[in-house]
Amino acid sequence: MTITLTSYVQGAWHAGTGEPRMLHNATTEEVLAGFNSDGIDFGGVLAHARDVGGPALRAMNFPERGAMLKALSGAIHEHREELLDLSAANAGTTRKDGKFDIDGATGTLASYAYFAKECGPRNFLSDGDGIQLGRTARFWGQHIHVPRHGAAVHINAFNFPAWNMLEKAACALLAGVPVIEKPGSATALVAWRIAQIVVESGLLPEGAWQFIAGSTGDLLDKMGPQDVMAFTGSAWTANKLRSNTNLITNSVGMNIEADSLNAAVLGPDVEPGSETWRLFLRNVLLDMQQKTGQKCTAVRRVLVPQDRLAEVKDELTAMLADIVTGDPTDRATTMGPLASAAQLRDVRAGIERLAGSGSILCGGFDPVHESGYFVAPTLLEANSADEDVFHREEVFGPVATLLPYSGTAADAAAIVARGEGSLVGSLYANDTPWVEEAVLAMAPWHGRLWVGSDRMAEQSLPPGMVLPSMVHGGPGRAGGGEELGGVRGILFYMQRCAVQGFKGQVHGCFGAQEPAKAT
Amino acid sequence: MTITLTSYVQGAWHAGTGEPRMLHNATTEEVLAGFNSDGIDFGGVLAHARDVGGPALRAMNFPERGAMLKALSGAIHEHREELLDLSAANAGTTRKDGKFDIDGATGTLASYAYFAKECGPRNFLSDGDGIQLGRTARFWGQHIHVPRHGAAVHINAFNFPAWNMLEKAACALLAGVPVIEKPGSATALVAWRIAQIVVESGLLPEGAWQFIAGSTGDLLDKMGPQDVMAFTGSAWTANKLRSNTNLITNSVGMNIEADSLNAAVLGPDVEPGSETWRLFLRNVLLDMQQKTGQKCTAVRRVLVPQDRLAEVKDELTAMLADIVTGDPTDRATTMGPLASAAQLRDVRAGIERLAGSGSILCGGFDPVHESGYFVAPTLLEANSADEDVFHREEVFGPVATLLPYSGTAADAAAIVARGEGSLVGSLYANDTPWVEEAVLAMAPWHGRLWVGSDRMAEQSLPPGMVLPSMVHGGPGRAGGGEELGGVRGILFYMQRCAVQGFKGQVHGCFGAQEPAKAT
Repeated sequence: MTITLTSYVQGAWHAGTGEPRMLHNATTEEVLAGFNSDGIDFGGVLAHARDVGGPALRAMNFPERGAMLKALSGAIHEHREELLDLSAANAGTTRKDGKFDIDGATGTLASYAYFAKECGPRNFLSDGDGIQLGRTARFWGQHIHVPRHGAAVHINAFNFPAWNMLEKAACALLAGVPVIEKPGSATALVAWRIAQIVVESGLLPEGAWQFIAGSTGDLLDKMGPQDVMAFTGSAWTANKLRSNTNLITNSVGMNIEADSLNAAVLGPDVEPGSETWRLFLRNVLLDMQQKTGQKCTAVRRVLVPQDRLAEVKDELTAMLADIVTGDPTDRATTMGPLASAAQLRDVRAGIERLAGSGSILCGGFDPVHESGYFVAPTLLEANSADEDVFHREEVFGPVATLLPYSGTAADAAAIVARGEGSLVGSLYANDTPWVEEAVLAMAPWHGRLWVGSDRMAEQSLPPGMVLPSMVHGGPGRAGGGEELGGVRGILFYMQRCAVQGFKGQVHGCFGAQEPAKAT
Repeated sequence: MTITLTSYVQGAWHAGTGEPRMLHNATTEEVLAGFNSDGIDFGGVLAHARDVGGPALRAMNFPERGAMLKALSGAIHEHREELLDLSAANAGTTRKDGKFDIDGATGTLASYAYFAKECGPRNFLSDGDGIQLGRTARFWGQHIHVPRHGAAVHINAFNFPAWNMLEKAACALLAGVPVIEKPGSATALVAWRIAQIVVESGLLPEGAWQFIAGSTGDLLDKMGPQDVMAFTGSAWTANKLRSNTNLITNSVGMNIEADSLNAAVLGPDVEPGSETWRLFLRNVLLDMQQKTGQKCTAVRRVLVPQDRLAEVKDELTAMLADIVTGDPTDRATTMGPLASAAQLRDVRAGIERLAGSGSILCGGFDPVHESGYFVAPTLLEANSADEDVFHREEVFGPVATLLPYSGTAADAAAIVARGEGSLVGSLYANDTPWVEEAVLAMAPWHGRLWVGSDRMAEQSLPPGMVLPSMVHGGPGRAGGGEELGGVRGILFYMQRCAVQGFKGQVHGCFGAQEPAKAT
């Protein structure tokens, strides 16, 4: 029996009237669920968000909205086991990988509940200090951020059905802006179950949360100047969204996270066997294995000083050989299948393209099991770091390529820049001047840089992990967007306005207050 | 004899090889100058900025770049009289209006020299405090802003040939990013003379400043992921730029300032003859008269409580009757012509369209003088505030419309919001609760709100004046961009990057420092 995923729109659940799109179990390829969004009045969905959800959210202040997020985090966490099971079936995640998504989602909601405390008990943020504008302090200026009076349309990626939807929702809802969530199709089952939990919890005011299982129809064509859109997915789709005439005409705010060929760079000072060396190998392995490499932050390019290449090859291929692919619900399995047949097809084709300019050290594009969307962890060595394909082709699976380089920070930065903009780069080095040079040279091309060293090895969280307190996004190929980063992440949903006038009024009404005391 | 305006590209002045476009004296319609950009290698222009200008600017720290801007301000100021003459001829500005542009430009450069002191003696900015990311403080995060490694392409508006070019350049150059300036065609003579002064001053490193007199050819198609574009002009052109496939594909950062139907709202508590009343009338008059209404911040919609409408009409039409249009170099003249024949044609057509839904109280679309691009200051009264044309049609001349409203803050905000996003709104009221309600309701639709009251009337600068310390831009129809606002204005030219690692390295290299002491 297959489940019908419904949409939650204008205060009711809606089953699409058209031919359903089918979802499959990633391990067995059995049909799990179907969904379709035909028949939804998308203009009505937007109006419901703007006219019902927005005013209700804006009637709350930041701490009240923070408390709402905290409660929501708890409500979803209560269903953790059920969600992990759905994730294993629909997304092919091991228990560990499922937790990375589900706990990441509830953790991010809880983090934004915490950040709410920095915002004060108002419905707008003061931005910076007041400024004297006239000859005396009588004529005064103060910047503020206010919630937009529109809807936030979120078009989410398939690889993190829980986290990607809820990290976006956390920011919008804390800002005071209602959300319309469209999950990535391949894993919509997990997202839909969360949407049910959200609605059934009754924690959000009506209109603050709507959910579209299926195509967004003419939604984009009906968005207005106070609406915003955030998207995570392929550069191809991002370009299509960005070209939408209505979004362009209305200057609809767009926050885009797209392709990224993240690099790891081993510094020349790192001795084999040292703590930083082991951290480097462990993190590259983790990025290939975790979520079967389906992480937008996963390392695709591994830059290794030429004279360390042989040792890195030996150690990394040995570690990869220990990975056990199979049914993710089996405890012995350490890497599940890819999330969909389309993913499998793309990854196999991608490996083949990479192999045209390098050699496969382990893995490859051959089938792994008789059924299911499995691919082997695949490490390649580039013929040269100069080969274009490694800087262009994001193979979204357990696939990475070793690229030899000279060991200088400048050379590393120049090679990494050929990716034309990435979400995260990781560096491994203890030599501070080398690190400083590399970070400053690579930072224009990255939303985040992660530096591994002996002193933090034991305490660090890996570079592929997105933290709510640090921004996530990247320039160029990565889409030019920015999410999270604590309170920074809610500003996309707000309008900055400079207020000028008599100091008594302007500072009195809109000036910064001390952060709210805990009560 | 006409002047040939040349482009400054790749270190040399270039005269276009094609048929020149002609510039006219706005008062006499005589030909003043011609220009054309055919033959320029735009890919080479971008490469020159990226490869020569960028590294040279990044070799300087913020205070050094600030000192450069300060010197540049002085060098341009030395040519003030000459520039005022060119502005009068080419743009039709009175001496007062010319100063508003030229002194605004040099003043903004000087302001950014001052803001540089807040940035510290480095080449990047620390953004906020460091953040503990692990169980202990060893694993640490710090956000930074670094200059982009690209070029800033500035497509500027005709109405402020000096200010609009140099306020953008000030922000980019202080950030450490080289500029490519394309002036608005109608008034390119003033911009070109400034470009000459900039180049001849030798104050900027080679490659930091290039100037295109004429079309940008295939420049946009050659921009890359580290380049950015800022545009001021019509929504129509903005939409064309935003639709450019190459800019979309490369996630090129775009900052757009487009159409804006700015509103002034008279509060119900303001008594005729009071200080705030007189301030209101004075500022509406100023916005209509100054620059012959060719200011993106000028008031187009004047909301007046129904029971004050008759008095406002009487006083304002009497004040407008005193305006003397004519040759701007004549001392008796208080309002010059529009800047071009195209402007005159558009403004006359626009008045006609507005008059279809209201009545002309003074002025109109009839010719004023036998030659020159003159139009009379024109005040209309709308049949109703509900008429769509007044919220949609930006008539870019000395034209405003009175719209009656109930006097409540909510009604005012709802009417103003029909403009779908504006650069600046002005409110006149002494009643603080009314002001607070109106500001919070109008702020989502504005980049700036200005509140006039008795207590600041004597000390205030008018709402149409853009100040370097406050952001300038607006959502929706106004383009969704943001410029200036002190240090905020340079962030568009930088990439924010979250740096994570061992606290000793991350905080030591990238943590916030105390602002530099004056030496």
